[in-house]
Amino acid sequence: MLRIPSALSPAGAAPLLCAGITTYTPLRHWGVGKYHKLAVVGLGELGHMAVKIGKALGTEVTVLSTSERKRKDAEQLGAFNFALTSQPETFTRLQRHFDFILDTVSAPHNYNTYVNLLKTDGTMILVGAPDKPTPLEPFPLILHRRRIAGSVIGGIRETQEMLDFCATHNIESDIEVIPIQQVNEAYERVLKGDVRFRFVIDLRSLK
Amino acid sequence: MLRIPSALSPAGAAPLLCAGITTYTPLRHWGVGKYHKLAVVGLGELGHMAVKIGKALGTEVTVLSTSERKRKDAEQLGAFNFALTSQPETFTRLQRHFDFILDTVSAPHNYNTYVNLLKTDGTMILVGAPDKPTPLEPFPLILHRRRIAGSVIGGIRETQEMLDFCATHNIESDIEVIPIQQVNEAYERVLKGDVRFRFVIDLRSLK
Repeated sequence: MLRIPSALSPAGAAPLLCAGITTYTPLRHWGVGKYHKLAVVGLGELGHMAVKIGKALGTEVTVLSTSERKRKDAEQLGAFNFALTSQPETFTRLQRHFDFILDTVSAPHNYNTYVNLLKTDGTMILVGAPDKPTPLEPFPLILHRRRIAGSVIGGIRETQEMLDFCATHNIESDIEVIPIQQVNEAYERVLKGDVRFRFVIDLRSLK
Repeated sequence: MLRIPSALSPAGAAPLLCAGITTYTPLRHWGVGKYHKLAVVGLGELGHMAVKIGKALGTEVTVLSTSERKRKDAEQLGAFNFALTSQPETFTRLQRHFDFILDTVSAPHNYNTYVNLLKTDGTMILVGAPDKPTPLEPFPLILHRRRIAGSVIGGIRETQEMLDFCATHNIESDIEVIPIQQVNEAYERVLKGDVRFRFVIDLRSLK
């Protein structure tokens, strides 16, 4: 059983049970904290939670995104830095820069270019799950003893820990509350990536 | 500077400086030891050292090979188990069986099928380096928080540690000593995989 701390609003806490725990678990499991440099790939629902939680853990967070329009969001969320993955220059400038990369993107993309941004012994963690395989080059992993790992959601005990952590650090999901009557419109907007960062349905609108 | 312990023969120690340290480093770095189940993929020079060192670390070692003729070698080297990767049944029977997989194969092969042999939080370590990328499926990594890592050779301090470890545990590389005059023939045999497990050239034959 989970207890939602009273410091959290029910609507802002709801997505924590998905995006919150999905990003909290790997950051805690791999001991991401102060003195680490963390890249968050993709700034959607998962990514925006990773930025908030990473920052609360004392980590220097850089958002990597294909889209210039995410730059302002990254700043507002407290990211230390922002870089465009649509610019090849990013992948030379940030080579061997990060201790951890949390990859939240669920469309197939080239992992190898991101692995090259890891320091020696760095770890890239996949929480976005593309449904198609992508080519993996062994050399970028081998040469600097880097790792690609996966992580999925989290257990009940850790979910409670995450909720308490979020309450302590004033972290909620950024949401847009809609009545159930707008669910189709909201679905269309989700497909277009037009939500900052998750819709929450107010179930009182069912009455 | 490295000191070859007197308990080791020069010829049997020579390949330790390559295959020995290449397999010792990841096994030590990831803390492979007692109560772990380790799969070694490929039984060539790297693989046969991994079996010896893994066994000396107290690990239960299983050799995974495409070739039935490696079964006897695996037994003689002290492997606990042997399984044929040319039989699909192996990949169902050994699902979620291993804590670690050390992959020594440098020809491109399907990593995903091996990842499925890892337990939760298991690590597959690549020390063989295929020169072509192979498709990576994110789901087998994500669902059980597994990792694919790389590792390359090792530093001087750890190489000395490895030499001392091998002396303590009576570990040398299995070799075939040849005079320099047979080097072309030996090269042809290496290409055919016909060596147990490395050629060492006796440089006295240069005179």
